[in-house]
Amino acid sequence: MALTKDEITAALQALQDRICSALETADNKGKFIEDKWERPGGGGGRSRVIESGAILEKGGVNFSAVHGELPANVQTALGVNEKDFFATGVSIVMHPENPHVPIIHMNVRYFELNENVWWYGGGIDLTPHYVVTEQADWFHHQLKEACDKTDNSYYPKFAAWADKYFYIPHREESRGISGIFFDRLNTESTGKTKEELLQFLLDVGNSFAPIYTHLMELNHKKQVSELNKAWQMHRRSRYVEFNLVHDKGTKFGLDTHGRIDSILMSLPPSTGWIYTQNWPEGGEELKTQEYLRTVHVPRS
Amino acid sequence: MALTKDEITAALQALQDRICSALETADNKGKFIEDKWERPGGGGGRSRVIESGAILEKGGVNFSAVHGELPANVQTALGVNEKDFFATGVSIVMHPENPHVPIIHMNVRYFELNENVWWYGGGIDLTPHYVVTEQADWFHHQLKEACDKTDNSYYPKFAAWADKYFYIPHREESRGISGIFFDRLNTESTGKTKEELLQFLLDVGNSFAPIYTHLMELNHKKQVSELNKAWQMHRRSRYVEFNLVHDKGTKFGLDTHGRIDSILMSLPPSTGWIYTQNWPEGGEELKTQEYLRTVHVPRS
Repeated sequence: MALTKDEITAALQALQDRICSALETADNKGKFIEDKWERPGGGGGRSRVIESGAILEKGGVNFSAVHGELPANVQTALGVNEKDFFATGVSIVMHPENPHVPIIHMNVRYFELNENVWWYGGGIDLTPHYVVTEQADWFHHQLKEACDKTDNSYYPKFAAWADKYFYIPHREESRGISGIFFDRLNTESTGKTKEELLQFLLDVGNSFAPIYTHLMELNHKKQVSELNKAWQMHRRSRYVEFNLVHDKGTKFGLDTHGRIDSILMSLPPSTGWIYTQNWPEGGEELKTQEYLRTVHVPRS
Repeated sequence: MALTKDEITAALQALQDRICSALETADNKGKFIEDKWERPGGGGGRSRVIESGAILEKGGVNFSAVHGELPANVQTALGVNEKDFFATGVSIVMHPENPHVPIIHMNVRYFELNENVWWYGGGIDLTPHYVVTEQADWFHHQLKEACDKTDNSYYPKFAAWADKYFYIPHREESRGISGIFFDRLNTESTGKTKEELLQFLLDVGNSFAPIYTHLMELNHKKQVSELNKAWQMHRRSRYVEFNLVHDKGTKFGLDTHGRIDSILMSLPPSTGWIYTQNWPEGGEELKTQEYLRTVHVPRS
């Protein structure tokens, strides 16, 4: 019997539960508050936000399952003629208080049109305020392992896709150290069954908590200077620029009249745009900037 | 002899000078730093930014005169077939330190296509963190006076246009108390000469300094609480959302590969997105919020 959208929905809801619980354990102070909401056009979600944790300054682990009619501009953007859509997914962004802990983002989703066209999409990417090469390599290795369970060709393909997706063209720099990104995975595009691809999606989803709690543990006790905090505010401003100017998920949410506070939970609790930039010559800040401008830039 | 684009350019450059000088006098501490830049595609500008003034925490008064070829997506957005463009203008955004002083924005511009199609555009709008009704009325009255010099029909028309333009649909609220907005003013659309319309543009431009220095003077000594600062950070975050998601000027700048730091000088020196909003019942914060959700919302 074919996998139903209710089963996929339930699997993603359970993923949200597991991740929230792992993050609360790792933070050891902050608790998620849950807001259940309904979308006037159809469906709803469970937004879970953590604020003022010991390590996590602000973050969200949002689940939603929405349906309705696609506005014409969204149909155009997606290049589809079908109107009735169903979308379910889990979206995460975490902004840690300590600038030595990276920002992380994950999204895993299932999308259906007119109850016959369907696909999976998603990705994970890491945005360290300060790039630590060993941690960057370790992060990518974890993603590779999650991908390899399904197909050895996935990691290189989806890592290259992430380099394209998580790039900020107007700044000519990558948002962070990239990760993996994939979309429109279905039997037609991959040769795999709907069940196999759900397993892949869950493998990616399940890699999130061990990856991020490890990075929290490694970095959250590091000492923080005023310069570190100023640089964090600066990097966060680029995160805002990416999310509001380029991110397709944010745009899809705004265009389909999703719940604003859930869509924009990705934005940082504090940031700012300073015109006069004076980062010390030869310092870690400019090293990270150089990394972002050279390492994960899209190969055309 | 017909007005040339060099004469218009010179008039706008002189406007930039007058405004910077008036703002420095009113701030009485901050000084503009100037960055001259050239655009690889053609033209350039003079960005002038003030930071850490006594009243003005961050602001820019930017002049530019750029030319080149319009990218296809910009032609589509403008609904034009012509490719060669010339654009000159002055753009201003001021973020004051004291939340009782409003944020202000002005833009006046001249646009030309293939050296024969031309128009003027621009606007001024005010974004008080706390709406003071008398000051809001006074602000609109000043704009009306500037408009009436050219045509009594302009203020009501351009104020309604501003209500539409400075609206944040995804928040269902106005960015501030609106102002005036106009675009594509030329002889065909207005029956006025190019000279008369330049005079109108300069009347608008010249109203900026007396308006804003008066509002600075009225409000900058008011006492500031922690709540006031938190509310200012919140209002500034909506300003960011408007500028990065909706503002056509920002989009035009990014799409035509303008100078990023000049385009984004409009963004505040500090802000943040807090999920859990706890503004006191019956307080000035929620009164302003109510105002923004009801008074200047577009009449369809």
